[in-house]
Amino acid sequence: MAPSSRVLKLTVSYDGSRFIGWQRQAAGESIQSLLETALARFEGGPVTVHGAGRTDAGVHALGQVASAVVTCPHDTGVLCRGLNAQLPADVRVLSVADAAPEFHARFNARSKTYRYLLRNGPLASPFERQTVWHVTDQLDHDAMVLAASMLTGSHDFAAFRSTGGSVSSTVRTLTRSDFGVERNAALPGVDPEAAGRLLTYEVQGDGFLRHMVRAIVGTLVEVGRGGRTAASVAALLDGGSRSEAGATAPSHGLYLVSVDYD
Amino acid sequence: MAPSSRVLKLTVSYDGSRFIGWQRQAAGESIQSLLETALARFEGGPVTVHGAGRTDAGVHALGQVASAVVTCPHDTGVLCRGLNAQLPADVRVLSVADAAPEFHARFNARSKTYRYLLRNGPLASPFERQTVWHVTDQLDHDAMVLAASMLTGSHDFAAFRSTGGSVSSTVRTLTRSDFGVERNAALPGVDPEAAGRLLTYEVQGDGFLRHMVRAIVGTLVEVGRGGRTAASVAALLDGGSRSEAGATAPSHGLYLVSVDYD
Repeated sequence: MAPSSRVLKLTVSYDGSRFIGWQRQAAGESIQSLLETALARFEGGPVTVHGAGRTDAGVHALGQVASAVVTCPHDTGVLCRGLNAQLPADVRVLSVADAAPEFHARFNARSKTYRYLLRNGPLASPFERQTVWHVTDQLDHDAMVLAASMLTGSHDFAAFRSTGGSVSSTVRTLTRSDFGVERNAALPGVDPEAAGRLLTYEVQGDGFLRHMVRAIVGTLVEVGRGGRTAASVAALLDGGSRSEAGATAPSHGLYLVSVDYD
Repeated sequence: MAPSSRVLKLTVSYDGSRFIGWQRQAAGESIQSLLETALARFEGGPVTVHGAGRTDAGVHALGQVASAVVTCPHDTGVLCRGLNAQLPADVRVLSVADAAPEFHARFNARSKTYRYLLRNGPLASPFERQTVWHVTDQLDHDAMVLAASMLTGSHDFAAFRSTGGSVSSTVRTLTRSDFGVERNAALPGVDPEAAGRLLTYEVQGDGFLRHMVRAIVGTLVEVGRGGRTAASVAALLDGGSRSEAGATAPSHGLYLVSVDYD
């Protein structure tokens, strides 16, 4: 009799700095391929791991979710410790759980939350080179907070995506779009006096187009620089073109925070 | 006529991860040698940069102070920007100032402040591999806070140093020795729920013996593990031997925070 299969739900955190991204590719190291290789040691054969979202090269995750169909009988705690023992220190499995037989990390995701970190001040911190976008120009934080708040709801976000993705619709629903400013963020290794301000953009939605969060952040920074108004950002929804929105913010400030399921 | 000399005071922050330490050595990259090379481009000849403290390999600095005697006439703002333009991103000059002719970063230092960061929880963060010491064992934070507080004042700290340094006296005066616990530290890239607690040891004194802060932290962690009492730590002052104190904590959790002058 063939062993019965089960579905695992993995929650994973990684520093994306040195990876080609989540997704397995012909060349280069991906988080997906590392997890598949580690899980295959328990399974005794190849395993496919499906991630909720394909983070790009340099993008980080605090709570990426992945699923895999396996037959190995190991306890979830044993699997979690055993995977971490095999993985490099910049990828950590936070938890392993048994999921319902029909669970799929990508298809069942109800919403995702992303965070973007931005340091606004004269000096770049030696400790944030790969984890926070440093912007020297003085930004109007109030204008950015206002512009961010205007993006919630269901809209056509075609102006905020990179071409190349094949999607049937560019309409997405954002349930949260908040820009926050921390004056004295307690970051390790940063003197609060010299550090400027840590700006945090947090966005939750039912789905995101390719480079959508980074295009939003790049556009919000142009608002902060005074190059465009908050109202002009809202005007890009439902009909604006990509060329009218701002530049794509760099990948290293972006984090996939969490994925929600029913 | 020879150009007149001036003394510069540099405040420097660095991620010490990939360096052999502050001090120039025959082989390997040091922060001192990088600064000397960068400053020599302005000076048109060799310059010696003296640091307030010699941080070891892997040790970081938020506000290391260095001095140099130069003859170049450049404005301090020009020097600061010009040095940063030459330095790698993991070393940043925070400020350059003209100092009194007799100023020497090491000999005139009145006190130094060090910080040690420690993550106490089941999971290591992928984002703290080189900046925070991760301790899995559950620690008794209250006992560590108490033990740390007993180290202030003037004492013989011979039990908390590595041999090899040549010092005339092992008596030092600590004006601050505080262990703090942050339950939800807002670290970039770390989910507060999964992150455990960030423990911060902050110590200020008129001088520190070789590996002294790391020996103190290693001993405090043994208190946290229940392997020794707070009172036994105080008993190591003024007569204890190195073998009676705890292991030396790793270098990558240590930061030179600031140096004070009269």
